[in-house]
Amino acid sequence: MALPLWKNLLQTTKERILQQRRLSLYSGAHGYQEELIKKKLQQFAGGSINLSKEDNGIGILTLNNPKLMNAFTGTMMIELQERVTELENWKDGKGLIVCGAGNTFCSGSDLNAVKEMSNSQDGMNMCMFMQNTLTRLTRLPLISVAVVQGKAFGGGAELTTACDFRLMTPESEIRFVHKHMGLVPGWGGAARLVRIMGSGAALQLLSGAARVDAEKALHLGFSEQTLSSSDDISRVLEEARAWLNQYTEGPASVIRAMKKVVTAGRELPLEAALRTEKDIFGTVWGGPANLQALARRPKHK
Amino acid sequence: MALPLWKNLLQTTKERILQQRRLSLYSGAHGYQEELIKKKLQQFAGGSINLSKEDNGIGILTLNNPKLMNAFTGTMMIELQERVTELENWKDGKGLIVCGAGNTFCSGSDLNAVKEMSNSQDGMNMCMFMQNTLTRLTRLPLISVAVVQGKAFGGGAELTTACDFRLMTPESEIRFVHKHMGLVPGWGGAARLVRIMGSGAALQLLSGAARVDAEKALHLGFSEQTLSSSDDISRVLEEARAWLNQYTEGPASVIRAMKKVVTAGRELPLEAALRTEKDIFGTVWGGPANLQALARRPKHK
Amino acid sequence: MALPLWKNLLQTTKERILQQRRLSLYSGAHGYQEELIKKKLQQFAGGSINLSKEDNGIGILTLNNPKLMNAFTGTMMIELQERVTELENWKDGKGLIVCGAGNTFCSGSDLNAVKEMSNSQDGMNMCMFMQNTLTRLTRLPLISVAVVQGKAFGGGAELTTACDFRLMTPESEIRFVHKHMGLVPGWGGAARLVRIMGSGAALQLLSGAARVDAEKALHLGFSEQTLSSSDDISRVLEEARAWLNQYTEGPASVIRAMKKVVTAGRELPLEAALRTEKDIFGTVWGGPANLQALARRPKHK
Repeated sequence: MALPLWKNLLQTTKERILQQRRLSLYSGAHGYQEELIKKKLQQFAGGSINLSKEDNGIGILTLNNPKLMNAFTGTMMIELQERVTELENWKDGKGLIVCGAGNTFCSGSDLNAVKEMSNSQDGMNMCMFMQNTLTRLTRLPLISVAVVQGKAFGGGAELTTACDFRLMTPESEIRFVHKHMGLVPGWGGAARLVRIMGSGAALQLLSGAARVDAEKALHLGFSEQTLSSSDDISRVLEEARAWLNQYTEGPASVIRAMKKVVTAGRELPLEAALRTEKDIFGTVWGGPANLQALARRPKHK
Repeated sequence: MALPLWKNLLQTTKERILQQRRLSLYSGAHGYQEELIKKKLQQFAGGSINLSKEDNGIGILTLNNPKLMNAFTGTMMIELQERVTELENWKDGKGLIVCGAGNTFCSGSDLNAVKEMSNSQDGMNMCMFMQNTLTRLTRLPLISVAVVQGKAFGGGAELTTACDFRLMTPESEIRFVHKHMGLVPGWGGAARLVRIMGSGAALQLLSGAARVDAEKALHLGFSEQTLSSSDDISRVLEEARAWLNQYTEGPASVIRAMKKVVTAGRELPLEAALRTEKDIFGTVWGGPANLQALARRPKHK
Repeated sequence: MALPLWKNLLQTTKERILQQRRLSLYSGAHGYQEELIKKKLQQFAGGSINLSKEDNGIGILTLNNPKLMNAFTGTMMIELQERVTELENWKDGKGLIVCGAGNTFCSGSDLNAVKEMSNSQDGMNMCMFMQNTLTRLTRLPLISVAVVQGKAFGGGAELTTACDFRLMTPESEIRFVHKHMGLVPGWGGAARLVRIMGSGAALQLLSGAARVDAEKALHLGFSEQTLSSSDDISRVLEEARAWLNQYTEGPASVIRAMKKVVTAGRELPLEAALRTEKDIFGTVWGGPANLQALARRPKHK
């Protein structure tokens, strides 16, 4: 017996909230006060986070605050959370490009907001807010790539680590400048950087606040490729799309499952990763894409 | 007081069963139905898995179903489990070479069996059956190497990740073709691939279903060496034995302990790995090989 | 109301003991008998472990037993524990150089002591004693580097893995000779080596007892740089200090926090690492170094 529509909607909303909680790291139980920090962040307005979902299953997420080199204002942090929710609900999505407006990536947090929030309670809540959002971004069943033009500094450098891959234009640079601000990463950038390049290289980049240009990033395995375009954003995106398309071509159900098995392999201890791989395998085995592929193969004698 | 022989045998059999359970991932508690899936697999007969145990402590495990490029039939899956049990009980073993008959490695699963088992229950049981076997293979106290001639596709590519190392002949290739079959790895290949080469490279190989030739495998750290022989299996094996012998030379108790400490380091969180290393150290400290080595060293003044 | 001095001291001593327990791996609950093994180790005297704490926040820890190539006697093991305690309490420390006297690093354990301790109880206690000390060394909030001149063999090779980085002089070598002694690592060297270079390369070095010279170490990512000086210890240290200084320059609170976030990223599963990163971020956010840096930046309009 089908549920009435409003019950169905309620059910769906409930499930979404439950899923967000499951994918998030912090709740009230950790002393996290989401409503409080959202009210605070609302006070620091400016810029936007834009999302366009293309027919090929690739989403383009753009940080848009060019007069501050796309620094995160408070409202941009809130909008990023909303866009991630939107991406979680995009069932046809297969890939994600994260980039910045105005030929640069992101210079971190808006210092006006930071100065007003330099007390401990605000800092910890902001940190948990951004870790929740970026952890959910990392766990999206989309193959994601940060396309770095210009500069990715501080929180901007941390944002690149929340993507599966990084592509850089020839003149761009990534720099964990935290030390020079008397800080360490707090948006999860250190924990993720260690997983990307090993703890030795991560400790060098962080404690040295070292400039990582496109060549060094390639050498460290931090970037996959140096793009040939540089200033023209539409050309840069064209190159990024072509690169990403190698991995997103195919049925959404399969590409999304592939991202999920790798996420499990990356986050979980071996035994838990194997069990999760088995569960995800179960979602595609005997499914439409699998049956179609089998039908194309002749039976041998 | 010594136990009578029959009690001793009973004890040993009991211990073996307990150990297999401990080394396996799935039991009835996970909804796994081993007897059911074995009955099903018996229906898809063909090929064999051969094991020869050499005096030098190196075992040669051969996938033998050349008319299907050594694809796994149902009975081959069952035989692989039996051969792994045999290897677990081979107390003099130090190394293992996994290879294929007929100048190729393995093309995955026999599609005739797959088509008949494309329902969810069979798929999950088969997946758990193979994960159990390959996890026990990975945890053998033998230094293992997959010797890839020809092609290692799909489940064949996954099998190579269950070995400690891979050696490839010049014309060979490894390819995770799962995407083209509407699938993701399910035999643990994704979880293990992430540990071998990092999650970024693993995601690229899996979601791109990319061809990995000998040169690319070397570059990725996926293969240790490109062999110079190609078609003559006895020469290929000779090269592989010589390579492996660098690591298996020495007393079995020590080589096996060495594999165990590395397995612990690979599978466990740091603190658990350290505790296990201490326990394994305790099995060789003051043992015969250690005392002999100490006796060769003069006491200093 | 301030506590009387003696209560303060008592409090501090209690906290120190508690912290040491927290940072250690083994206590009585693991069958570890610290007082027993310390009494035993006292019987094998010779050499010393020297610590000098420089004004720049860099400590120099020197293994000093040159007539035995700086092999660890029993009293040196005890002194190493004491020096690590001293470093844990050095609140201005930012970096640590570990080196050996007499142009060599360390040849492992003093065989005279080893021969007298080759029973199981002594071996396990010694192993737990050294694992506790080296685990605490690894977790120091100091960026640490082993400077390898001459030879680092056996336990000496294991000691290098307890540092964040390794620098080698041109003629030096690191070699896990355990196999030739009928042993495997027991001081945590295997577990840490797997984390530094991956399980495949670690298994090769350990089971091959392979000589790792400066060039090979660089290639494996085991060493960061080959120093140009060789025999003159003061020049070698000068080069090492300059290298380390790139990473230790800045306020102690920030450098120490940076080491802590990377330690968490290295030791903990992702979610636990993220939570710890947030907590450490909370110790510097709005702190003196952060506020000073913010004050230097003009408010934008």
